[in-house]
Amino acid sequence: MTIGIGLLGLGTVGAGVAGILATPEGRHPLVGDLALRRVAVRDLQRPRPVDLPAAILTTDPEAVVDDPAVDIVVEVMGGLEPARSLILRAIAAGKPVVTANKAVIARYGEEIAAAAAEQGVYVLIEAAVGGGIPIIEPLKQSLGGNRIQRVSGIINGTTNYILSRMADEGAAYGDVLADAQRLGYAEADPAADVQGGDAADKIAILAGLAYGGSVQRSAIPAEGIDRLDSRDVSYAAQLGFVVKLVAAAQFLGTDADGTVQLDVRVSPTLLPKEHPLAGVHGVNNAILVEGDPVGRVMFYGPGAGAGPTASAVVADILNIAGIRQVGGSEAGLDPLLAASRWRQCRLVDPGLTQHRNYVRLRTSDEPGVIGRIGTCFGDQQVSIQSIVQFEAKGGAAAGAGAGAATGGAAEIVVITHEVGEARFRAALAAIEALPEVVSVAACLRTM
Amino acid sequence: MTIGIGLLGLGTVGAGVAGILATPEGRHPLVGDLALRRVAVRDLQRPRPVDLPAAILTTDPEAVVDDPAVDIVVEVMGGLEPARSLILRAIAAGKPVVTANKAVIARYGEEIAAAAAEQGVYVLIEAAVGGGIPIIEPLKQSLGGNRIQRVSGIINGTTNYILSRMADEGAAYGDVLADAQRLGYAEADPAADVQGGDAADKIAILAGLAYGGSVQRSAIPAEGIDRLDSRDVSYAAQLGFVVKLVAAAQFLGTDADGTVQLDVRVSPTLLPKEHPLAGVHGVNNAILVEGDPVGRVMFYGPGAGAGPTASAVVADILNIAGIRQVGGSEAGLDPLLAASRWRQCRLVDPGLTQHRNYVRLRTSDEPGVIGRIGTCFGDQQVSIQSIVQFEAKGGAAAGAGAGAATGGAAEIVVITHEVGEARFRAALAAIEALPEVVSVAACLRTM
Repeated sequence: MTIGIGLLGLGTVGAGVAGILATPEGRHPLVGDLALRRVAVRDLQRPRPVDLPAAILTTDPEAVVDDPAVDIVVEVMGGLEPARSLILRAIAAGKPVVTANKAVIARYGEEIAAAAAEQGVYVLIEAAVGGGIPIIEPLKQSLGGNRIQRVSGIINGTTNYILSRMADEGAAYGDVLADAQRLGYAEADPAADVQGGDAADKIAILAGLAYGGSVQRSAIPAEGIDRLDSRDVSYAAQLGFVVKLVAAAQFLGTDADGTVQLDVRVSPTLLPKEHPLAGVHGVNNAILVEGDPVGRVMFYGPGAGAGPTASAVVADILNIAGIRQVGGSEAGLDPLLAASRWRQCRLVDPGLTQHRNYVRLRTSDEPGVIGRIGTCFGDQQVSIQSIVQFEAKGGAAAGAGAGAATGGAAEIVVITHEVGEARFRAALAAIEALPEVVSVAACLRTM
Repeated sequence: MTIGIGLLGLGTVGAGVAGILATPEGRHPLVGDLALRRVAVRDLQRPRPVDLPAAILTTDPEAVVDDPAVDIVVEVMGGLEPARSLILRAIAAGKPVVTANKAVIARYGEEIAAAAAEQGVYVLIEAAVGGGIPIIEPLKQSLGGNRIQRVSGIINGTTNYILSRMADEGAAYGDVLADAQRLGYAEADPAADVQGGDAADKIAILAGLAYGGSVQRSAIPAEGIDRLDSRDVSYAAQLGFVVKLVAAAQFLGTDADGTVQLDVRVSPTLLPKEHPLAGVHGVNNAILVEGDPVGRVMFYGPGAGAGPTASAVVADILNIAGIRQVGGSEAGLDPLLAASRWRQCRLVDPGLTQHRNYVRLRTSDEPGVIGRIGTCFGDQQVSIQSIVQFEAKGGAAAGAGAGAATGGAAEIVVITHEVGEARFRAALAAIEALPEVVSVAACLRTM
């Protein structure tokens, strides 16, 4: 039973998928049942890494969707439009869709899921998060018996590459970014990666699957690494932490009507060195799922690249091909694979969340300043884990380490225990008002 | 649509499953469709951690399988018999089976799979390997587009706990084992864990899924940690390695008839400190899958325990419940979920495999011994990465480190590059014949 595949886009991922379909030997035998029928490209003349018959190429993506020989539509063109419209067109035609497009799914996932449910077709998105790492399928199918407490991850390879090098070499953000751009690990316009938008797209998708309800992408607070100072990476290391861009969705409770309360955010975050995510280096990704009763499980691997992403796309195609062998034309959808939404989710007011914090203060180096800072935290019942004075680089007179400075500017780093955001902010305001405090130079989440 | 569950066994895992089924709120809504109908126990009077109506308990496991209200049979009793017969009885009755029983699946997997295929029912085994870690499902469904090059893992928590403590504390194997037994991390009879049999069961299962063919369990060479000397753990650490009990299945090629050639084994193995598996501590498990084109993906989490294992069992139950909504009574099986075997696998002669090695030699401490050892390796074209002399503990006169010893006994550790096993053995034989060499004290695989 041959299954016709239509490909929208023949960039690196599309070419990777075509490459797998063209070489089925040694892979699951279902791969041999897949036949590439039609491929939409932007430019027919451009040289390609894969050899495809000219007759199946077209510049008209709608022709791919509409082709009666195409049973499954694979969208790997990226961007919001025309990708969204083409996905909806395929659904309307009763054709299942496989897409790697996190931006479309994060923004239009609800519209697409509603259309898919009405038409009774699958829209599978394994490649949208974590590249080649199987994470969507385990979340949908393998962890359904759990109450998920938190999903957290390093899900942007570009920023993890930059942070790894900042930590290893003590290098400045701007220098490493320029290098990453030269090496092809960062785009010419790196905004979506370094400002956290890409990770926010992905955590919106993961949270939706983990908690069974749509998460409003535009409401997710996302902070990137573009304003991260390398001295905070260095101070964190000296205190036993690693700075990572962490995207996290945490369960906080349910409203009376069953709506799930979530804290979803993207932020540069201090992780203790022994935290499972702390050891994820370079362009790798990892997603940690904490649930009851499973405990902590982690999924790790290459978060991007033609091969890994194509592996995930083909996984979805195979899933659809496999389940086709189960039912006839009257078949329903497997609710696990379809990832049906079964409840509402809402993001809570950030002021009501609880977490640990890292704060770096620029102060004048006078006796008693640490005591006054400690008092401000204490007045707000903010409990402190450590408070350390570092040598102030670039200050008028640098101190020589914790407590050893004798005048001029100092840098004081405070790590708090878990505390409500509102009380923490109140303490910070009081600290900023102290005459010895020049500025709150950095403030980072801490796990 | 309620689905009746029959439970064979109500030990820690069985009680964990019953606990999840009894508290569906906050889990996937399909959990609410599952109803526990009948439970086989050994002793009706024994107190249980879960509260179940006395009427559903029975001491007759066949009554559970035969009960018309039971749609899915869940085998969590362990042991070979009557577990195997009960699984086959359920299959014969057309009932899908979920089992956590790695011993039965590793030994009778082919018989069970053949019966299941004939009857058209699923036998799902997520809980048999890696406790709560989703690994069976990703291997079956998410990585099918890949050619798998190697599956390797730390899949026995007891031995990893012992090895972690040996490494951290420099403690002796016997002392840590006794402690692990006191703490409940090791059984009173620890043979299956510490001699590698449990890990061999599991790698047989993983290899069968990764390569699409049955692997003969009895042919897998398994070496445990029960003869591991703590000084090898310590020397390995000084050379930048961690010793782990690694179970691995490596693809070596295919015969002319398409039979897959595999090197499958369980052995204490040196891993470079930066290897993804090297950071897996305590009772945790991790499985690393290397494939083309996905690259390296790793799955990490709690490898045992009531909660994690119950999570995996319920995942399988949900999968069966979900796919029931797809087809009618005439429905076929999803070949991915059914994990149909599609080719033959065979284990190659260990003499034909290639790997790196760690060798510890006890020698008399005389000038020139390192040179003569190096020559023996060189004569067999065995390339050496490092050769280091250590202080010999317990020797007549201890040396003071590499090359600094002045007489009496010495210990020399050699790490080779990748080399054919036959040539390596020939070199070792020549080394053993050297007059300065007292014994080959240890020989460990190295990745």
